[in-house]
Amino acid sequence: MQIQSENRCFGGRQLVLEHPSMATGTPMRLAVFLPPAAQAGRVPVLYWLSGLTCTEENFTVKAGAQRLAAELGLMIVAPDTSPRGDGVPDDRDGAYDFGLGAGFYVDATESPWSTHYRMRSYVEDELPALIADGFPADPDRSAISGHSMGGHGALTMGLRNPGRYRSVSAFAPIVSPLNCPWGEKALGGYLGPDRGRWREYDACALIEDGARVPELLIDQGSADDFLDGQLKPALLETACEQAGIPLTLRMQPGYDHSYFFIASFIDDHLRWHGERLHA
Amino acid sequence: MQIQSENRCFGGRQLVLEHPSMATGTPMRLAVFLPPAAQAGRVPVLYWLSGLTCTEENFTVKAGAQRLAAELGLMIVAPDTSPRGDGVPDDRDGAYDFGLGAGFYVDATESPWSTHYRMRSYVEDELPALIADGFPADPDRSAISGHSMGGHGALTMGLRNPGRYRSVSAFAPIVSPLNCPWGEKALGGYLGPDRGRWREYDACALIEDGARVPELLIDQGSADDFLDGQLKPALLETACEQAGIPLTLRMQPGYDHSYFFIASFIDDHLRWHGERLHA
Repeated sequence: MQIQSENRCFGGRQLVLEHPSMATGTPMRLAVFLPPAAQAGRVPVLYWLSGLTCTEENFTVKAGAQRLAAELGLMIVAPDTSPRGDGVPDDRDGAYDFGLGAGFYVDATESPWSTHYRMRSYVEDELPALIADGFPADPDRSAISGHSMGGHGALTMGLRNPGRYRSVSAFAPIVSPLNCPWGEKALGGYLGPDRGRWREYDACALIEDGARVPELLIDQGSADDFLDGQLKPALLETACEQAGIPLTLRMQPGYDHSYFFIASFIDDHLRWHGERLHA
Repeated sequence: MQIQSENRCFGGRQLVLEHPSMATGTPMRLAVFLPPAAQAGRVPVLYWLSGLTCTEENFTVKAGAQRLAAELGLMIVAPDTSPRGDGVPDDRDGAYDFGLGAGFYVDATESPWSTHYRMRSYVEDELPALIADGFPADPDRSAISGHSMGGHGALTMGLRNPGRYRSVSAFAPIVSPLNCPWGEKALGGYLGPDRGRWREYDACALIEDGARVPELLIDQGSADDFLDGQLKPALLETACEQAGIPLTLRMQPGYDHSYFFIASFIDDHLRWHGERLHA
């Protein structure tokens, strides 16, 4: 892991790092916030997965999470949203919703994507091992959250790995890629036309197929332009209700899909994760 | 004033606006945060002046100020750092420290800058009138702060206009353009070689020449790359001491010149201004 930048922040350290990834076969960048408590011992870790077009930077500079993370003693790990660099293919039209910046947290099976687009393996397996190895992280106290495409990533990783994350939350997540244009484009492209193979990357389908988490916290803005066409939280409500998963879905009146929405409610999520991670 | 964007944020409204400016003869952009209390009546206003290379956006998305501003009922007004657009000249080499993004909060007297580079008149006179006219602002309760070049702007505007701002603070300000390379380049370019005419744009010189404010709060990172070569807070310490101006200069160990530094201490400044604005 090479340090690209380091800034003192709320008494802790905000790092941007780069390392060669086995999973993606490319250099990968990530942001790590180390709270002051990390100087004295191992601390719990919150993984944050970002949305379409984002890098490791967006959450780090826009969410305002470090203040309370420092207070609560939480490490925050925010990876990039796709492999990048020479030889990494992009959407043929350069669209924002496929290819670079849009890895969708899957292991692609279709050519030419399958060589580098392996964000599932990267975030699920390689990254936690690197963090446990290189930082004072307590791997037994991990949580995961994310926004939009990253909310989809957080939900599906939480559901596929029971016990791995003590708590799972999301902001304006894509709850069912099987049932929205972003998901159909991404999963169709990365995984091919067999929709049965998409189910392990669809939070609602995972729940229907038996996956469980203890509970979920989701915030969703009512003025989000993508609410009805892409995000469809009612699908997750139904799936959770049928499966008996306690879901706290908070519709936030007037809020949109931006980081101003995330910043407004990130403290609630940090406290919620903190209670579970410090329990 | 045309609204370019509007986002709900901490129960208030984060606006980006554009308007034709009489002072600069160009369209000017600014960011305005309206706290929830602005729905019920007039609220105090904190003007924030940004540093070199910034626009109205940097403070708005990176400082994390809206959370506490919402709680304290403070409006925040963050203008751009220079005129922009067709016909606005830039540094001949495109340098970051002169021309676009580097207006230095002066009224230029030298050609070709004097036509549009009139940020002093814009921020001191035109902007407060527009804010008082278009928003539920209480002009009798105004404060000013800023970062680096914007800290210079805040200090000099506060010193030149006794009583206009109830409180003046700064982060890592340029305290004496007469005594640093950034200042020599900018004031020499905008105002010409007569250094006597620079003194009304130099916080230390203004104090030496008799200008006063009731008190000052300044935060400065000890690991700021510009500390010794450009910022030189000791010059302001000396000036304040000789003039009897109470200066709280907080050296923050390990902090640099970035927005991570500003975010770490903005709450202290907001509370400090809030106490004086609500007194």
